[in-house]
Amino acid sequence: MTAAAPSQDVLTTDLYEATMCLAYLREGMTGEATFSLFVRRVPPGRGFLVAAGLESALDHLARLRVGPAEVAAFAAVMNRPPEELAVLDGLEFRGEVRAVPEGRVVLAGEPLLEVTAPLPQAQLAETILLNQVSHRTAVAAKAARCVLAARGRPVVDFALRRTHGTEAGHAMARIGALTGFAGTSDVAAAHHLGLPAIGTMAHSYIEAYEDEETAFRAFARAHPGPVTLLADTYDTEEGVRTAARVLRDLGLGPGCAVRLDSGDLGELARRSRRILDEAGLPEVEITVSGGLDEYAIDRLVRSGAPIDTFAVGTKAGVAADAPYLDSAYKLVAYEGRPVMKLSHAKVTRPAPKQVFRRPGLRDTLALRDEPVPPGAEPLLETVMRDGRRTGPKPSLAAARRRFEADLAQLPEAARRIDDPEPPEAQISGPLSRLTDEVRGRLERRMAALRER
Amino acid sequence: MTAAAPSQDVLTTDLYEATMCLAYLREGMTGEATFSLFVRRVPPGRGFLVAAGLESALDHLARLRVGPAEVAAFAAVMNRPPEELAVLDGLEFRGEVRAVPEGRVVLAGEPLLEVTAPLPQAQLAETILLNQVSHRTAVAAKAARCVLAARGRPVVDFALRRTHGTEAGHAMARIGALTGFAGTSDVAAAHHLGLPAIGTMAHSYIEAYEDEETAFRAFARAHPGPVTLLADTYDTEEGVRTAARVLRDLGLGPGCAVRLDSGDLGELARRSRRILDEAGLPEVEITVSGGLDEYAIDRLVRSGAPIDTFAVGTKAGVAADAPYLDSAYKLVAYEGRPVMKLSHAKVTRPAPKQVFRRPGLRDTLALRDEPVPPGAEPLLETVMRDGRRTGPKPSLAAARRRFEADLAQLPEAARRIDDPEPPEAQISGPLSRLTDEVRGRLERRMAALRER
Repeated sequence: MTAAAPSQDVLTTDLYEATMCLAYLREGMTGEATFSLFVRRVPPGRGFLVAAGLESALDHLARLRVGPAEVAAFAAVMNRPPEELAVLDGLEFRGEVRAVPEGRVVLAGEPLLEVTAPLPQAQLAETILLNQVSHRTAVAAKAARCVLAARGRPVVDFALRRTHGTEAGHAMARIGALTGFAGTSDVAAAHHLGLPAIGTMAHSYIEAYEDEETAFRAFARAHPGPVTLLADTYDTEEGVRTAARVLRDLGLGPGCAVRLDSGDLGELARRSRRILDEAGLPEVEITVSGGLDEYAIDRLVRSGAPIDTFAVGTKAGVAADAPYLDSAYKLVAYEGRPVMKLSHAKVTRPAPKQVFRRPGLRDTLALRDEPVPPGAEPLLETVMRDGRRTGPKPSLAAARRRFEADLAQLPEAARRIDDPEPPEAQISGPLSRLTDEVRGRLERRMAALRER
Repeated sequence: MTAAAPSQDVLTTDLYEATMCLAYLREGMTGEATFSLFVRRVPPGRGFLVAAGLESALDHLARLRVGPAEVAAFAAVMNRPPEELAVLDGLEFRGEVRAVPEGRVVLAGEPLLEVTAPLPQAQLAETILLNQVSHRTAVAAKAARCVLAARGRPVVDFALRRTHGTEAGHAMARIGALTGFAGTSDVAAAHHLGLPAIGTMAHSYIEAYEDEETAFRAFARAHPGPVTLLADTYDTEEGVRTAARVLRDLGLGPGCAVRLDSGDLGELARRSRRILDEAGLPEVEITVSGGLDEYAIDRLVRSGAPIDTFAVGTKAGVAADAPYLDSAYKLVAYEGRPVMKLSHAKVTRPAPKQVFRRPGLRDTLALRDEPVPPGAEPLLETVMRDGRRTGPKPSLAAARRRFEADLAQLPEAARRIDDPEPPEAQISGPLSRLTDEVRGRLERRMAALRER
């Protein structure tokens, strides 16, 4: 017994991980297990996924250690005396993790990561790995599509107010950085990750003053240098004219912008551009926001609207049209024996794996130890050994470069905004043969059982 | 300057809250402001919303204090010398919050909360209030529909692995408790909130053993007392037969269950029930899981499938079909002057408000200080004054009772699972007249500006 507060990192798990670990440890089932975390299907409206969430997942794994306080907490929620759970004391993650680095494009069925560890350790890691990787990979795919739709124009993240909590908001800011966003409104993320912080003013700011002009001038006094003025509180064109007058009076221009947050953004951007140009402010830019996603950005860009920056929020931050992935964390080997599940549509492929990528994102899903085919590159790298990272945390900039390199290789059908078609990984001969062999063995055993 | 780490609570904000506060404080714009947080529209597929997120939002507000470390961080992300932001030092939330208590049913346009505070304080609170309340209210509406669909059968929360991060997972567990769930798989939430923790075993658990029977027996040895056995790893009916044999051998029965996680759950439940009954185990229950939401639960219940417990995960935890709400935090009064926004579809109503509820959930949106009509009950209560809670944190049990009481009053059209129709709040005469008056005043002013 101890009075220390139990670790949130350890307790942030589905109860069944603990109940299974207890059975494993009691039975001496501590042989080496490999689990594979992958996404079964790329959701409709996505032509690819983007690996994300690995780094925070590894941070959690490194802190995964069950001590007396956590045993007491598990015992309490199981309504059992802590003594009966004593075997959990000292359980910690000391395993190996092989993973696709963040930022890489991934396809259905490809392991995002594989954990190899004594069975109870690998099991205890399940919930947190799925939680971190599924969510962030889903949002990264959405964010990447916003960047694709903007075709080189800056996209910035305004999602924090509508993400599923603050952790998800900070994750979105980081995912934006990973997928090529130009900045975030989230001060904590900007400060912590060294990202450009973006922010202007709310409608309430304008409304608090007697009129727009007074509000704009007060803002410019408080923020010497370039400012972005929100123009659509009352009447957008009038607001842009007022903004133009204030900027001209103050001798401002380059680096400044007006923001439009409602209405027909394409048409209003055109009219705003005309007003700004006629006011002699051709360098004042136009930022738009308000319910944007890749579809809206795509329409605006294709319409030729003179928009310089797209601020995306809610719909990217919650991956609104595909807010979850059909991810799985499946046992694929135990004590060297390849393992799979038979039931219904959820059949999985056995054994530890590797993904070999050829130019043009032609991928092959293979057994871990197959030789690397000529001209191919293996995607999974060893990132943790004995429960410790094998190297320093990779930089966000490196992840972003990986994303950009993979994106450039993506076939047009996968990149397009409307009805994208995800490429499919081929299955290697050895993996295909092993799948058939294990399935055959399991089916024969089930048949024998039924005849009993 | 200070070496202390800045508070994450303060920095978890959109940058523009800080840029606006800076302008307000420099200009002496510190008059009393009231902001109203409401949802503009109930999303399709929802007949009502359920207030949630207030308690964690208040916890954040109580910690909202800008000191030198936070000033330095704001200055860093703005690329400005901290001295220029010195006026932010000491800014903290000392305002009043009136709110609808958690668990109550709310409708479109009804304030979930109103903040009255000096303008910079009320502005600084915006991001975190929207973040906590929008997400949790969206998920609570989804969770409530799952409970409705189950018509009295227990519903439990298995969402943690696919929520948008761990904070969202813990929030889901709490929201489940608020809306009548019977338990959660999330150990941290169960431990912290005193909820029943629910958990069984994964398919990997079965696969790690030589066969199902060995796996079941090992589990029962580790967990004396009632167990739930996962039956669908290889062949569901065979799995249920094996589970029945093990339970009978061990003399188990009451409190035990089999879990089905794939396939045609209704048909498999019927066959499983028959197998269990024939094995003399009528009291062994059937739990189903796997991609469930209110629609699936509704179909299963209406089909008469002999299912005892529904475990819902992903789709409830991310509110999959409506993962965000069109929420707003709008300035409605400044220095006693009612304020509103005109632009486009986003017109808001001015002035601080109250909601009067009559039996049958007939609501009237009114001005804050209108007299309570006979037979009506005001929904917004003062929950924070001078930046401190006015009383102890209300219990989850109390919130759940409020939810159940409101749910019982909800019209059938709002309760139904398919194509629900949300009731609409009426607008009181005084609020309607004030809206017209303020709009008229703003429109006259805009017309005058255009003629200039």
